[in-house]
Amino acid sequence: MTDGGARYGDIMLRLPPWLLAIAERENPVFTSVEARMRFAIELAQQNVRRRTGGPFGAAVFDSATGHLAGVGVNLVEASHCSIAHAEMIAIVMTQQAVGHYDLGAAGHAYELATSTEPCAMCLGAIPWSGLRRVVCAAHGEDAAAIGFDEGAKPADWPGELGRRGIEVIRDVLRSEAQAVLQEYARSGGLIYNAQQPA
Amino acid sequence: MTDGGARYGDIMLRLPPWLLAIAERENPVFTSVEARMRFAIELAQQNVRRRTGGPFGAAVFDSATGHLAGVGVNLVEASHCSIAHAEMIAIVMTQQAVGHYDLGAAGHAYELATSTEPCAMCLGAIPWSGLRRVVCAAHGEDAAAIGFDEGAKPADWPGELGRRGIEVIRDVLRSEAQAVLQEYARSGGLIYNAQQPA
Repeated sequence: MTDGGARYGDIMLRLPPWLLAIAERENPVFTSVEARMRFAIELAQQNVRRRTGGPFGAAVFDSATGHLAGVGVNLVEASHCSIAHAEMIAIVMTQQAVGHYDLGAAGHAYELATSTEPCAMCLGAIPWSGLRRVVCAAHGEDAAAIGFDEGAKPADWPGELGRRGIEVIRDVLRSEAQAVLQEYARSGGLIYNAQQPA
Repeated sequence: MTDGGARYGDIMLRLPPWLLAIAERENPVFTSVEARMRFAIELAQQNVRRRTGGPFGAAVFDSATGHLAGVGVNLVEASHCSIAHAEMIAIVMTQQAVGHYDLGAAGHAYELATSTEPCAMCLGAIPWSGLRRVVCAAHGEDAAAIGFDEGAKPADWPGELGRRGIEVIRDVLRSEAQAVLQEYARSGGLIYNAQQPA
Protein backbone atom coordinates (compact mmCIF):
# COMPACT_ATOMS: atom_id res chain seq x y z
CA MET A 1 0.00 0.00 0.00
CA THR A 2 2.82 2.43 0.77
CA ASP A 3 5.70 2.89 -1.63
CA GLY A 4 7.51 0.04 0.11
CA GLY A 5 4.62 -2.34 -0.47
CA ALA A 6 3.90 -2.75 3.24
CA ARG A 7 1.53 -5.54 4.31
CA TYR A 8 -1.17 -5.06 6.90
CA GLY A 9 -2.79 -7.41 9.34
CA ASP A 10 -4.06 -7.77 12.88
CA ILE A 11 -1.91 -5.97 15.41
CA MET A 12 0.46 -8.33 17.20
CA LEU A 13 2.90 -7.52 19.97
CA ARG A 14 5.19 -10.44 20.70
CA LEU A 15 6.21 -10.67 24.33
CA PRO A 16 9.63 -12.00 25.37
CA PRO A 17 9.41 -15.70 26.29
CA TRP A 18 10.87 -15.03 29.75
CA LEU A 19 8.02 -12.58 30.44
CA LEU A 20 5.33 -15.01 29.30
CA ALA A 21 6.89 -17.71 31.46
CA ILE A 22 6.52 -15.43 34.48
CA ALA A 23 2.91 -14.56 33.58
CA GLU A 24 2.02 -18.24 33.33
CA ARG A 25 3.41 -19.26 36.73
CA GLU A 26 0.70 -20.80 38.81
CA ASN A 27 -1.34 -18.28 40.74
CA PRO A 28 1.33 -16.25 42.55
CA VAL A 29 0.14 -14.00 45.39
CA PHE A 30 1.80 -10.79 46.55
CA THR A 31 0.30 -9.62 49.81
CA SER A 32 2.04 -6.28 50.50
CA VAL A 33 2.43 -3.13 48.42
CA GLU A 34 6.19 -3.54 48.76
CA ALA A 35 6.14 -7.15 47.51
CA ARG A 36 4.09 -6.08 44.49
CA MET A 37 6.53 -3.28 43.72
CA ARG A 38 9.58 -5.49 44.24
CA PHE A 39 8.15 -7.79 41.57
CA ALA A 40 7.57 -4.88 39.12
CA ILE A 41 11.15 -3.68 39.66
CA GLU A 42 12.43 -7.22 39.12
CA LEU A 43 10.67 -7.21 35.72
CA ALA A 44 12.41 -3.92 34.83
CA GLN A 45 15.77 -5.35 35.87
CA GLN A 46 15.24 -8.57 33.88
CA ASN A 47 14.31 -6.50 30.82
CA VAL A 48 17.63 -4.64 31.11
CA ARG A 49 19.78 -7.71 31.77
CA ARG A 50 18.17 -9.81 29.04
CA ARG A 51 18.39 -6.82 26.67
CA THR A 52 14.75 -7.10 25.66
CA GLY A 53 13.92 -3.40 26.15
CA GLY A 54 14.00 -0.29 28.31
CA PRO A 55 14.40 -0.18 32.11
CA PHE A 56 10.72 -0.17 32.99
CA GLY A 57 8.49 -2.87 34.49
CA ALA A 58 4.86 -2.98 35.60
CA ALA A 59 2.38 -5.49 36.96
CA VAL A 60 -1.34 -5.58 37.70
CA PHE A 61 -2.68 -7.26 40.84
CA ASP A 62 -6.09 -8.03 42.25
CA SER A 63 -6.06 -5.57 45.14
CA ALA A 64 -8.14 -7.75 47.44
CA THR A 65 -6.39 -11.09 46.97
CA GLY A 66 -2.93 -10.01 45.79
CA HIS A 67 -3.09 -12.37 42.82
CA LEU A 68 -0.91 -11.36 39.89
CA ALA A 69 -3.16 -10.49 36.94
CA GLY A 70 -0.81 -9.18 34.24
CA VAL A 71 2.78 -8.14 33.58
CA GLY A 72 4.55 -5.71 31.29
CA VAL A 73 7.94 -4.36 30.34
CA ASN A 74 9.02 -1.72 27.86
CA LEU A 75 9.07 -3.30 24.39
CA VAL A 76 9.17 -0.19 22.18
CA GLU A 77 12.31 -0.97 20.20
CA ALA A 78 11.90 -4.71 19.62
CA SER A 79 8.19 -4.52 18.80
CA HIS A 80 8.50 -1.44 16.53
CA CYS A 81 5.78 0.16 18.63
CA SER A 82 6.09 3.48 20.44
CA ILE A 83 3.10 2.78 22.69
CA ALA A 84 4.56 -0.48 24.07
CA HIS A 85 5.39 0.94 27.49
CA ALA A 86 5.43 -1.39 30.50
CA GLU A 87 2.18 -0.02 31.93
CA MET A 88 0.32 -0.34 28.61
CA ILE A 89 1.46 -3.95 28.13
CA ALA A 90 0.41 -4.86 31.69
CA ILE A 91 -3.00 -3.20 31.29
CA VAL A 92 -3.73 -4.84 27.94
CA MET A 93 -2.52 -8.28 29.07
CA THR A 94 -4.81 -8.08 32.09
CA GLN A 95 -7.81 -6.89 30.06
CA GLN A 96 -7.35 -9.65 27.50
CA ALA A 97 -7.09 -12.28 30.25
CA VAL A 98 -10.15 -10.89 32.05
CA GLY A 99 -12.05 -10.44 28.78
CA HIS A 100 -13.21 -6.90 29.48
CA TYR A 101 -11.91 -3.41 28.66
CA ASP A 102 -12.98 -2.16 32.11
CA LEU A 103 -10.99 -3.74 34.94
CA GLY A 104 -13.35 -2.04 37.40
CA ALA A 105 -16.40 -3.83 36.01
CA ALA A 106 -18.49 -5.99 38.36
CA GLY A 107 -16.95 -4.34 41.41
CA HIS A 108 -13.43 -5.62 40.82
CA ALA A 109 -10.48 -3.61 42.16
CA TYR A 110 -7.20 -4.00 40.31
CA GLU A 111 -4.02 -2.04 40.96
CA LEU A 112 -0.95 -1.26 38.89
CA ALA A 113 2.56 -1.30 40.32
CA THR A 114 4.99 0.50 38.01
CA SER A 115 8.73 0.82 38.52
CA THR A 116 8.69 4.43 37.27
CA GLU A 117 5.82 6.92 37.44
CA PRO A 118 3.71 6.89 34.25
CA CYS A 119 4.54 9.15 31.29
CA ALA A 120 1.85 11.41 29.84
CA MET A 121 0.49 8.63 27.59
CA CYS A 122 0.31 5.97 30.30
CA LEU A 123 -1.15 8.51 32.71
CA GLY A 124 -3.89 9.26 30.19
CA ALA A 125 -4.55 5.54 29.73
CA ILE A 126 -5.11 4.81 33.42
CA PRO A 127 -8.63 6.29 33.82
CA TRP A 128 -9.85 4.36 30.73
CA SER A 129 -8.50 1.06 32.12
CA GLY A 130 -10.70 0.71 35.17
CA LEU A 131 -7.69 0.43 37.53
CA ARG A 132 -8.45 1.61 41.08
CA ARG A 133 -4.92 2.18 42.40
CA VAL A 134 -1.49 3.05 41.01
CA VAL A 135 1.69 2.40 43.00
CA CYS A 136 4.95 4.01 41.81
CA ALA A 137 8.64 3.67 42.69
CA ALA A 138 11.01 5.97 40.73
CA HIS A 139 9.86 9.49 39.90
CA GLY A 140 9.45 10.76 36.35
CA GLU A 141 12.46 12.98 37.03
CA ASP A 142 14.56 9.88 37.75
CA ALA A 143 13.84 8.65 34.21
CA ALA A 144 14.48 12.16 32.87
CA ALA A 145 17.85 12.13 34.67
CA ILE A 146 19.06 9.38 32.30
CA GLY A 147 17.52 11.06 29.24
CA PHE A 148 13.94 9.76 28.94
CA ASP A 149 11.15 12.26 28.27
CA GLU A 150 7.94 11.90 30.31
CA GLY A 151 5.82 14.29 28.26
CA ALA A 152 3.40 17.04 29.29
CA LYS A 153 1.70 15.86 32.49
CA PRO A 154 -0.65 17.87 34.71
CA ALA A 155 1.36 19.33 37.61
CA ASP A 156 -0.92 17.58 40.13
CA TRP A 157 -1.37 14.30 38.26
CA PRO A 158 -1.97 12.26 41.45
CA GLY A 159 -4.77 14.70 42.28
CA GLU A 160 -6.24 14.32 38.78
CA LEU A 161 -6.36 10.53 39.21
CA GLY A 162 -7.73 10.95 42.74
CA ARG A 163 -10.63 13.01 41.43
CA ARG A 164 -11.48 10.00 39.22
CA GLY A 165 -11.50 7.64 42.17
CA ILE A 166 -7.99 6.24 41.54
CA GLU A 167 -5.63 6.17 44.52
CA VAL A 168 -1.92 6.94 43.93
CA ILE A 169 0.88 5.74 46.21
CA ARG A 170 4.36 7.08 45.43
CA ASP A 171 7.93 6.43 46.58
CA VAL A 172 7.56 2.70 47.22
CA LEU A 173 11.12 1.29 46.82
CA ARG A 174 12.17 4.34 44.81
CA SER A 175 15.90 3.79 45.32
CA GLU A 176 15.70 0.18 44.05
CA ALA A 177 13.96 1.39 40.87
CA GLN A 178 16.46 4.23 40.47
CA ALA A 179 19.24 1.64 40.59
CA VAL A 180 17.73 -0.18 37.59
CA LEU A 181 17.55 3.08 35.62
CA GLN A 182 21.21 3.72 36.45
CA GLU A 183 22.21 0.18 35.49
CA TYR A 184 20.51 0.65 32.11
CA ALA A 185 22.30 3.96 31.50
CA ARG A 186 25.67 2.41 32.43
CA SER A 187 25.03 -0.56 30.12
CA GLY A 188 24.68 1.79 27.14
CA GLY A 189 21.01 0.92 26.56
CA LEU A 190 19.13 2.92 23.93
CA ILE A 191 17.65 6.19 25.25
CA TYR A 192 15.16 6.91 22.51
CA ASN A 193 13.22 10.11 22.31
CA ALA A 194 11.57 9.94 18.95
CA GLN A 195 10.41 13.47 18.48
CA GLN A 196 13.07 15.90 17.37
CA PRO A 197 11.93 19.11 15.70
CA ALA A 198 12.15 18.69 11.93
CA MET B 1 -2.81 -17.67 36.95
CA THR B 2 -5.73 -15.68 38.32
CA ASP B 3 -8.59 -17.34 40.14
CA GLY B 4 -10.35 -17.82 36.83
CA GLY B 5 -7.39 -19.68 35.35
CA ALA B 6 -6.70 -17.01 32.72
CA ARG B 7 -4.27 -17.88 29.90
CA TYR B 8 -1.63 -15.51 28.66
CA GLY B 9 0.01 -15.04 25.31
CA ASP B 10 1.26 -12.46 22.84
CA ILE B 11 -0.96 -9.41 22.63
CA MET B 12 -3.30 -9.56 19.66
CA LEU B 13 -5.79 -6.96 18.52
CA ARG B 14 -8.01 -8.27 15.75
CA LEU B 15 -9.08 -5.62 13.30
CA PRO B 16 -12.48 -5.71 11.57
CA PRO B 17 -12.16 -7.31 8.11
CA TRP B 18 -13.70 -4.24 6.45
CA LEU B 19 -10.92 -2.08 7.95
CA LEU B 20 -8.15 -4.43 6.81
CA ALA B 21 -9.66 -4.49 3.32
CA ILE B 22 -9.38 -0.70 3.21
CA ALA B 23 -5.79 -0.78 4.49
CA GLU B 24 -4.82 -3.25 1.80
CA ARG B 25 -6.20 -1.27 -1.14
CA GLU B 26 -3.48 -0.52 -3.61
CA ASN B 27 -1.52 2.61 -2.83
CA PRO B 28 -4.26 5.22 -2.43
CA VAL B 29 -3.17 8.85 -2.45
CA PHE B 30 -4.93 11.74 -0.70
CA THR B 31 -3.50 15.04 -1.80
CA SER B 32 -5.32 17.62 0.35
CA VAL B 33 -5.79 17.97 4.09
CA GLU B 34 -9.54 17.88 3.50
CA ALA B 35 -9.36 14.65 1.48
CA ARG B 36 -7.31 13.01 4.24
CA MET B 37 -9.82 14.11 6.86
CA ARG B 38 -12.81 13.05 4.79
CA PHE B 39 -11.30 9.56 4.69
CA ALA B 40 -10.75 9.50 8.49
CA ILE B 41 -14.37 10.59 9.06
CA GLU B 42 -15.56 7.91 6.63
CA LEU B 43 -13.76 5.31 8.77
CA ALA B 44 -15.56 6.65 11.86
CA GLN B 45 -18.90 6.48 10.07
CA GLN B 46 -18.27 2.93 8.81
CA ASN B 47 -17.34 1.86 12.36
CA VAL B 48 -20.72 3.18 13.57
CA ARG B 49 -22.79 1.72 10.74
CA ARG B 50 -21.10 -1.68 10.83
CA ARG B 51 -21.38 -1.65 14.65
CA THR B 52 -17.71 -2.54 15.14
CA GLY B 53 -16.96 0.18 17.70
CA GLY B 54 -17.14 3.81 18.77
CA PRO B 55 -17.61 6.82 16.47
CA PHE B 56 -13.94 7.60 15.97
CA GLY B 57 -11.67 7.14 12.94
CA ALA B 58 -8.05 8.03 12.20
CA ALA B 59 -5.52 7.56 9.43
CA VAL B 60 -1.80 8.18 8.94
CA PHE B 61 -0.47 9.61 5.68
CA ASP B 62 2.96 10.30 4.24
CA SER B 63 2.82 14.10 4.34
CA ALA B 64 4.92 14.57 1.22
CA THR B 65 3.26 12.07 -1.12
CA GLY B 66 -0.21 11.74 0.44
CA HIS B 67 0.03 7.94 0.46
CA LEU B 68 -2.14 6.25 3.07
CA ALA B 69 0.14 4.55 5.61
CA GLY B 70 -2.21 3.22 8.31
CA VAL B 71 -5.81 3.28 9.49
CA GLY B 72 -7.61 2.96 12.80
CA VAL B 73 -11.04 2.99 14.40
CA ASN B 74 -12.15 2.69 18.00
CA LEU B 75 -12.11 -1.01 18.94
CA VAL B 76 -12.28 -0.78 22.74
CA GLU B 77 -15.35 -2.89 23.36
CA ALA B 78 -14.84 -5.68 20.80
CA SER B 79 -11.14 -6.12 21.51
CA HIS B 80 -11.49 -5.95 25.31
CA CYS B 81 -8.85 -3.25 25.29
CA SER B 82 -9.25 0.23 26.74
CA ILE B 83 -6.27 1.61 24.82
CA ALA B 84 -7.68 0.61 21.40
CA HIS B 85 -8.59 4.16 20.34
CA ALA B 86 -8.59 5.04 16.63
CA GLU B 87 -5.40 7.09 16.85
CA MET B 88 -3.50 4.35 18.71
CA ILE B 89 -4.54 1.68 16.18
CA ALA B 90 -3.51 3.91 13.25
CA ILE B 91 -0.14 4.73 14.83
CA VAL B 92 0.68 1.10 15.67
CA MET B 93 -0.47 -0.20 12.27
CA THR B 94 1.80 2.33 10.56
CA GLN B 95 4.78 1.56 12.78
CA GLN B 96 4.41 -2.18 12.26
CA ALA B 97 4.21 -1.68 8.47
CA VAL B 98 7.21 0.66 8.45
CA GLY B 99 9.13 -1.56 10.89
CA HIS B 100 10.20 1.25 13.23
CA TYR B 101 8.81 2.76 16.42
CA ASP B 102 9.82 6.25 15.24
CA LEU B 103 7.84 7.42 12.22
CA GLY B 104 10.12 10.46 12.03
CA ALA B 105 13.23 8.32 11.54
CA ALA B 106 15.32 8.86 8.42
CA GLY B 107 13.72 12.24 7.76
CA HIS B 108 10.23 10.88 7.09
CA ALA B 109 7.22 13.11 7.79
CA TYR B 110 3.98 11.35 8.60
CA GLU B 111 0.75 13.01 9.69
CA LEU B 112 -2.32 11.80 11.57
CA ALA B 113 -5.85 12.80 10.59
CA THR B 114 -8.29 12.08 13.41
CA SER B 115 -12.03 12.57 13.30
CA THR B 116 -12.08 13.89 16.90
CA GLU B 117 -9.28 15.64 18.76
CA PRO B 118 -7.12 13.18 20.76
CA CYS B 119 -7.98 12.27 24.35
CA ALA B 120 -5.33 12.63 27.07
CA MET B 121 -3.87 9.17 26.32
CA CYS B 122 -3.65 9.61 22.55
CA LEU B 123 -2.28 13.13 23.03
CA GLY B 124 0.46 11.69 25.24
CA ALA B 125 1.22 9.02 22.65
CA ILE B 126 1.75 11.46 19.76
CA PRO B 127 5.22 12.77 20.69
CA TRP B 128 6.54 9.19 21.15
CA SER B 129 5.26 8.16 17.70
CA GLY B 130 7.43 10.39 15.54
CA LEU B 131 4.40 11.96 13.81
CA ARG B 132 5.07 15.48 12.51
CA ARG B 133 1.51 16.79 12.07
CA VAL B 134 -1.92 16.17 13.60
CA VAL B 135 -5.11 17.22 11.81
CA CYS B 136 -8.39 17.23 13.76
CA ALA B 137 -12.07 17.61 12.91
CA ALA B 138 -14.48 17.46 15.89
CA HIS B 139 -13.41 19.05 19.15
CA GLY B 140 -12.97 17.11 22.38
CA GLU B 141 -16.05 18.95 23.65
CA ASP B 142 -18.09 17.52 20.76
CA ALA B 143 -17.29 14.02 22.03
CA ALA B 144 -18.00 15.15 25.60
CA ALA B 145 -21.38 16.45 24.41
CA ILE B 146 -22.50 12.86 23.73
CA GLY B 147 -20.96 11.57 26.97
CA PHE B 148 -17.34 10.60 26.19
CA ASP B 149 -14.61 11.72 28.59
CA GLU B 150 -11.43 13.16 27.07
CA GLY B 151 -9.33 13.11 30.25
CA ALA B 152 -6.99 15.70 31.77
CA LYS B 153 -5.31 17.50 28.86
CA PRO B 154 -3.04 20.55 29.06
CA ALA B 155 -5.13 23.68 28.35
CA ASP B 156 -2.83 24.59 25.45
CA TRP B 157 -2.29 21.10 24.07
CA PRO B 158 -1.67 22.29 20.50
CA GLY B 159 1.07 24.54 21.89
CA GLU B 160 2.59 21.61 23.81
CA LEU B 161 2.80 19.59 20.60
CA GLY B 162 4.12 22.63 18.72
CA ARG B 163 6.96 22.96 21.18
CA ARG B 164 7.92 19.40 20.23
CA GLY B 165 7.96 20.20 16.53
CA ILE B 166 4.50 18.76 15.81
CA GLU B 167 2.10 20.96 13.87
CA VAL B 168 -1.61 20.91 14.80
CA ILE B 169 -4.41 21.85 12.40
CA ARG B 170 -7.92 21.99 13.88
CA ASP B 171 -11.47 22.42 12.63
CA VAL B 172 -11.03 20.58 9.32
CA LEU B 173 -14.55 19.28 8.43
CA ARG B 174 -15.65 19.60 12.05
CA SER B 175 -19.37 19.56 11.25
CA GLU B 176 -19.05 16.31 9.25
CA ALA B 177 -17.32 14.65 12.20
CA GLN B 178 -19.89 16.04 14.63
CA ALA B 179 -22.60 14.45 12.50
CA VAL B 180 -21.00 11.01 12.99
CA LEU B 181 -20.89 11.53 16.77
CA GLN B 182 -24.56 12.49 16.70
CA GLU B 183 -25.46 9.49 14.54
CA TYR B 184 -23.74 7.19 17.04
CA ALA B 185 -25.60 8.75 19.97
CA ARG B 186 -28.93 8.42 18.15
CA SER B 187 -28.20 4.78 17.30
CA GLY B 188 -27.87 3.94 20.99
CA GLY B 189 -24.17 3.03 20.74
CA LEU B 190 -22.31 2.29 23.97
CA ILE B 191 -20.94 5.40 25.68
CA TYR B 192 -18.42 3.77 27.99
CA ASN B 193 -16.59 5.68 30.65
CA ALA B 194 -14.89 3.00 32.64
CA GLN B 195 -13.81 4.88 35.69
CA GLN B 196 -16.53 5.45 38.21
CA PRO B 197 -15.48 6.17 41.79
CA ALA B 198 -15.68 2.97 43.84
